[in-house]
Amino acid sequence: MNTFETLLVNDQSPILEVTLNRPKQANAMNLKMVYELMDVMSHAAESDYRILLLKGCEGNFCAGGDIKDMQSANKLETQDEKVTALSELNRAFGRMIQLADKLPLVTVCVLEGAVLGGGFGLACVSDYAVCDETTVFGLPETSLGILPAQIAPFVVKRIGLTQTRRLALMGQRFKGEEAVRLGVIHQQVTADQVNETLNQAIKQILKCGPEANKATKALLHTVNECSSLDSLDTILDQAANDFAEAVLNGEGREGAMAFMQKRKPSWAEAKTQAGQESLHEQ
Amino acid sequence: MNTFETLLVNDQSPILEVTLNRPKQANAMNLKMVYELMDVMSHAAESDYRILLLKGCEGNFCAGGDIKDMQSANKLETQDEKVTALSELNRAFGRMIQLADKLPLVTVCVLEGAVLGGGFGLACVSDYAVCDETTVFGLPETSLGILPAQIAPFVVKRIGLTQTRRLALMGQRFKGEEAVRLGVIHQQVTADQVNETLNQAIKQILKCGPEANKATKALLHTVNECSSLDSLDTILDQAANDFAEAVLNGEGREGAMAFMQKRKPSWAEAKTQAGQESLHEQ
Amino acid sequence: MNTFETLLVNDQSPILEVTLNRPKQANAMNLKMVYELMDVMSHAAESDYRILLLKGCEGNFCAGGDIKDMQSANKLETQDEKVTALSELNRAFGRMIQLADKLPLVTVCVLEGAVLGGGFGLACVSDYAVCDETTVFGLPETSLGILPAQIAPFVVKRIGLTQTRRLALMGQRFKGEEAVRLGVIHQQVTADQVNETLNQAIKQILKCGPEANKATKALLHTVNECSSLDSLDTILDQAANDFAEAVLNGEGREGAMAFMQKRKPSWAEAKTQAGQESLHEQ
Repeated sequence: MNTFETLLVNDQSPILEVTLNRPKQANAMNLKMVYELMDVMSHAAESDYRILLLKGCEGNFCAGGDIKDMQSANKLETQDEKVTALSELNRAFGRMIQLADKLPLVTVCVLEGAVLGGGFGLACVSDYAVCDETTVFGLPETSLGILPAQIAPFVVKRIGLTQTRRLALMGQRFKGEEAVRLGVIHQQVTADQVNETLNQAIKQILKCGPEANKATKALLHTVNECSSLDSLDTILDQAANDFAEAVLNGEGREGAMAFMQKRKPSWAEAKTQAGQESLHEQ
Repeated sequence: MNTFETLLVNDQSPILEVTLNRPKQANAMNLKMVYELMDVMSHAAESDYRILLLKGCEGNFCAGGDIKDMQSANKLETQDEKVTALSELNRAFGRMIQLADKLPLVTVCVLEGAVLGGGFGLACVSDYAVCDETTVFGLPETSLGILPAQIAPFVVKRIGLTQTRRLALMGQRFKGEEAVRLGVIHQQVTADQVNETLNQAIKQILKCGPEANKATKALLHTVNECSSLDSLDTILDQAANDFAEAVLNGEGREGAMAFMQKRKPSWAEAKTQAGQESLHEQ
Repeated sequence: MNTFETLLVNDQSPILEVTLNRPKQANAMNLKMVYELMDVMSHAAESDYRILLLKGCEGNFCAGGDIKDMQSANKLETQDEKVTALSELNRAFGRMIQLADKLPLVTVCVLEGAVLGGGFGLACVSDYAVCDETTVFGLPETSLGILPAQIAPFVVKRIGLTQTRRLALMGQRFKGEEAVRLGVIHQQVTADQVNETLNQAIKQILKCGPEANKATKALLHTVNECSSLDSLDTILDQAANDFAEAVLNGEGREGAMAFMQKRKPSWAEAKTQAGQESLHEQ
């Protein structure tokens, strides 16, 4: 993989560790970071990585969108050019979130400090998210006279319309305890427990079959996008077929065998230990 | 605005305070109240008000539908006339809830005592709701042999199918702590803390740009009504354009300027103080 | 009703008590049990029963799908035959869950010990569920290299996409306290409080009109499957008509009369006491 201007990428196969790395801007996301994240995720989606681990640095996860890109767009000559540039800037961020949401890997977010605006949106598409006591969440957009435009669908999907209404229309900041209660994240621990908690989560994920996890994540998205009765039957028919294929492919056979022989399946051995141990006992 | 038979309306611009005012009936909602609420809300939607503050009086928010209207309908001659009158009565209430749900203002509910049936439905479409320790919530319809017909969609949207099944099929009453846990409301405080809590919430809302809040609330509804992948892309494209317009219009420009100059934006000054102070320090 | 190989069925009219009865397999669900459950539920749906009470035995509710059926399918000759057999096995289970989800009776689950995989799916379609401190929940499928294929839609519908992602992709087990917090179930009590809690729940359900409950449960499902604006209006129009019919039919009239005469409506008397008392004071 290439080197990046705004990210640190650490290959801890089967884990790909990605650190947002604009500490002087509290990791605010500029267009460069958006494109680099899309680049990393597209690469990871086609690789054998099983977990994308997304972190901040120097006390913050991500403070939102970088206001400088907006100012540049604002300096263009005509109103039409401005609208086009600002739309594209905003939409690019949304495309990144859409990509992250559907990533076939398991996405893990480790949160600290600012988790605001776009950073909040990113946390909302993780499969597992943990924060510490320094973490502050919020959707401050409306207090700046703008909209949480690309983030809104992912927040509504994450915590429902009710809570999103309050968060977006009041712009209030809140801490990890409330974030857990609302279902934004799954767990809050103290800063010195983060690594241990993270290692446990990674161990737990690596116990699951990589192909089974990919197929299950895709199924959950399909299910969530279906609303009518007809499509439920179609989905369940297809899911039954996917189930049969999973039972008969390598993982399903190995899983059943391991279960009967009371041993770990192959994917839960070997590969994983290296990644895990070197990763967070630094 | 006109005077009303069933409501007290208090212009505390930019806040419109509406008190349900049938204390002898525990503010049970008759057809008159339904029409008057629709009248007030339609008026508010076209004005410069930023917050609709909805309250009960004399210890109750709203005990549900008034049984007297039903009895009148029931006295009509033919079965057809009865069905038509009862349907229209019920549907009128639903239209009021639909209007309240989509109101471009930020809707705040202050709850006390009975929050039952239709009162429960009204609480379920607020953007922010707080209750005190006297508040009792419930959907008693099925225990009377009838249905929470117009309320059901708004309760499901608010707290999900799982919890709605239990509440509607068991008709059980419950207190504020559970209402917060289920996401019916956002906060419970003691009766003597209600005014302070409410003032804080109002302050918080008034920090947000009025146009930004309107556009965001509309976006959240659009998002919540979209289920398919195609429509998500369409929504996000449109949202990017709305974002650009918000950045370029007065509020977005003022918001960015205030942010850089480390001062409050114009909408968070002036107008608001008056409203706030006079409103709840009585 | 017939006798069953895998179930104990106890007629406590208006309650139909069904005990999963394969204790040596921790009540793991084989195809026989799936068909017998569908048989019982179809019968119950056409009867006058008001509550389906679903229980485990000897310390477990249900440990999931029985691996033996899968092994038989796996012994068929061609790959095509295997895929077909495994698909049908899986889909049959899904059809049972779909039937349970839409059952016109109120479905109550009493949980203990293992509530895994298919057992978890079954709990997710109950109208009211209580567990004790022995209960362990989880979706272990991916850790066996297979998918929670037929269960996924019902878990997403129950607890949302966010929490389902974590549970399915990490395969983690968890206890009743978390199950309540996530909304999988409604209540956790100690084992010696289960009967009393259950009796209270049953009493509460029997206070509600049987026809009103049926119509309400159907309405909630319709509402939950509707996403577009147009269909909301259609649903609310239909619901208003259902409301009128309910007011005018026997239950609605009796409910209003009982309310005014400050007595219990007929459905909350008579029938119920017998069922209740004999059922859980053993």
